[in-house]
Parts: sequence; structure tokens; C-alpha cells
Amino acid sequence: MPNPTAAMLVIGDEILSGRTRDSNMNHLAKVLTAAGIDLKEARVVSDDQTAIVAAVQALSAAYDHVFTSGGIGPTHDDITADAIGAAFGVSVGVRDDARALLQAHYDRSGTTLNEARLRMARIPEGAALIDNPVSTAPGFTLGNVNVMAGVPAVFEAMVASVVSKLAHGAPLLSETWSIMRGEGDVAEPLSRIARDHPDLSIGSYPFQKDGIYGTNIVIRGMEAARVSDAMAQLRALFPA
Amino acid sequence: MPNPTAAMLVIGDEILSGRTRDSNMNHLAKVLTAAGIDLKEARVVSDDQTAIVAAVQALSAAYDHVFTSGGIGPTHDDITADAIGAAFGVSVGVRDDARALLQAHYDRSGTTLNEARLRMARIPEGAALIDNPVSTAPGFTLGNVNVMAGVPAVFEAMVASVVSKLAHGAPLLSETWSIMRGEGDVAEPLSRIARDHPDLSIGSYPFQKDGIYGTNIVIRGMEAARVSDAMAQLRALFPA
Repeated sequence: MPNPTAAMLVIGDEILSGRTRDSNMNHLAKVLTAAGIDLKEARVVSDDQTAIVAAVQALSAAYDHVFTSGGIGPTHDDITADAIGAAFGVSVGVRDDARALLQAHYDRSGTTLNEARLRMARIPEGAALIDNPVSTAPGFTLGNVNVMAGVPAVFEAMVASVVSKLAHGAPLLSETWSIMRGEGDVAEPLSRIARDHPDLSIGSYPFQKDGIYGTNIVIRGMEAARVSDAMAQLRALFPA
Repeated sequence: MPNPTAAMLVIGDEILSGRTRDSNMNHLAKVLTAAGIDLKEARVVSDDQTAIVAAVQALSAAYDHVFTSGGIGPTHDDITADAIGAAFGVSVGVRDDARALLQAHYDRSGTTLNEARLRMARIPEGAALIDNPVSTAPGFTLGNVNVMAGVPAVFEAMVASVVSKLAHGAPLLSETWSIMRGEGDVAEPLSRIARDHPDLSIGSYPFQKDGIYGTNIVIRGMEAARVSDAMAQLRALFPA
């Protein structure tokens, strides 16, 4: 059975303006790879409802799971919940269980649950809440779309919770071999190994540092025996 | 006149598996913001021709400029030139001027221009070469798509060359104000300022570090007077 597929949607002007460097994509990629869920595509869009709706609909239709980050806070630029509601054609309103979570949280710190904070209890109809052990305001899952915060600590906690509940596939095995030759010297024999192992993904990544250059070859696949076989051929051609 | 728009396409399995953390998107975002070119969307796809073709066609049709990174080296997994050719319906072959660049480069270092290295001279018909001052193998521009290397030093040099030749827009001005309050306390007055300045993009970014928490407000826009006006209102509401 092929592994489940996934896509990520990063939402936020601050990423596209270059002000903030996204770290959530790399985190999610690592978690999904370990869980045997294939991250096939990622997109970044701005805080714009039309752009978010179009991306959510396209990714939700094309992949088994979608993970979004960003835009679920209390301010006017946090429009993800409304965009997800629009993408699925469902209404969005303050939900009692989400309100109760926030009320208890703010009561503990003696803070008022004002109208802005209450925005974080606005959840599209039919969604399930995602636990936020860091700062309480929940994410949510609607259909195959998991909507999470952009703040990395919160995003990572939500990912852990969501991915633990998904069916996992065969984790992708990966072995790396460093060759102190340029890619151009490695390419031809490497392409023969790749042709003989169409079930594997074989990547070639040149490096150059302090005048030393070489090529890292990464062999990825589901079956340990096949990865080992390709790696043995590579090592025989390019010994350490 | 509105600013030119742009999209980025990052090509590479290593990004989606989490092995490599992309840094080219953040670099391009900063360069384009300074040049007054609005980066509206970014996508990451794997080394898969169907995925690359679909993304290139969608982004090329939707935005003024497209910038790609990755997949133009000498190895079997470098399939970007063929994918771009397929996306535009043109043939791809070794080009004399690209071959001459590589021949001179490898002659200098006493290296053979073998068949694998010659792959880097395969350019889609009708493209213009992009100079590579770092490692010679050129990128290329076809239509509104600029195809560049994934290695950050090479990508950055190619971006500098390409963007210097594009028509620039009005650079986005940006001012930031740090408020030592939670987003929930800032949200309501901030949304009033945002309503009064629909021409500006006003973002709210909470932070928490060593027990200190607060909110950074970033006000972005084309007109200095408008940005200053909104910033003055914000400072009056939340003095330092």
C-alpha cells in the first residue's frame, strides 16, 4: 500500500516579505518523514482570503492530509478560520468548548476574555479541536485539513498531537555517502545505480567548504534491503 | 501603477523530506521586497516532472515573474531544464554558448567536460542564459520564468543578476513597534487603525522569550506619510 500523502500551507505576509524565516515547514517535513507520510508539496500564501481558499481547496483535493500554519490569533490579520470556513462552505462562529478553554486560561492569569481574544474561539462548523498545550487557543481539523498556529512552539506541539492520531506509513529509510569528487564525476555511474533501483529516490547534493568540495549522495526508500544494495554498489565505485 | 508580482518555485526532494532547510525563499523575498516586486506565493515541489510542469504553468500564468531554484546540476535527478521545456512546449538541447562556457571552465581546472557535465549546457529553445559567477554552469530565463541553481551561493548570485535587469516597483516601506502587551490587548485598537488605513498591510506578531511577552506590530506600505500616520496613532495608544 502506498504511503499517505500530505501538503503544507504556510499562511503569512511576513514570510513572503522576508521579515520572518519560516521554520515550520522543515519541522513538519521531518515529523512526516519519520511517520511514513509523504510530504509532496508546500505552498506559502499571504494573509488574503482568496489566496488561502484557492490553495486549501487545491491541496485538500490532491492529497490525503493538509497542514496549515499561521493566522489563527486574535488580531484583524488572523483570517485563517474564516478562509477555511469559506473553502468548505460552512459557517464560522464562537464555539462553547473553545470559549470555555479560553475562559479558564484567562481566568487563571486574571486577564479579561475580551472580544479580540474571543476571536480565537471562532471555529468552522463541524471541525474537531486541536489541543494547544502551550498557549491554550486551539487549532482545528476540518475534513482533511489541520489548521495550526504559526508560532513555532505552538505549531510543533499541535503537529505532535495531530500526527500521533494519523495512520502512519512505512517510514522512509535514508542513507548518505560522502564522495570527495565533483558531481560531474559521480553523475554517470550514479545514474546507472538509479536506473537499476527505480523504487528508490537517489539524490545528489554538491558541497563546497573551505576549498574542499564533494558530493553527498542520499539514497531513500521503503525497503532496507534495496537501500543497502544500492549503497553497496555506490561504496564499491567510490570507496571512502 | 501597482508593483510587479512574483512567485517562487523551490524544486527538490531534499526540502520536502526535511533533510535540507531551504534558505533561498527568504533570500529572494528580501531582495524582491527591496526592489518593489511583490512576492505573492511560493511553492515547493519534488523532483518530479509532472509536479514541476504543473506548478510552472500555474505560476507563470498568474504572476509577472517566476523564480525557480534547484535541479539544474549534472546528475540524473536534475530534471528542471526538461520540465521547463515541457511546460513551454519547446525542445531542450545542448547549446553552443553554454557548452563554450563550461569547456573554458573545465579547461582551466584540467577537468574533462564529460557527458554528465555537458547536461548543464542543455537549455530550452529560446531561453536567455543567466550568468553564474560562482561555478559557471548557467541558469536561464524562458518567458517570465527564471531558472536558477539550488546551491545558495549560486542562487543568490543569479538572483542579483536577474533582479537588476527587471523593472522595479515602489519599495515596500516597513516600520515596527514593540508593545509589551499580549496580542489580545492590542487587537481591538489595532483593527481600528487597520480599518482607517486600508492601503497599508498591518501585521501583528506575538513573541515570548525568557518569560517576557509582547507583540511586534509591523506596518508596511508604499507611502511614507501613510505609514508614519498609522505608526503615530499606534505609538499614541501604546507609548514606549
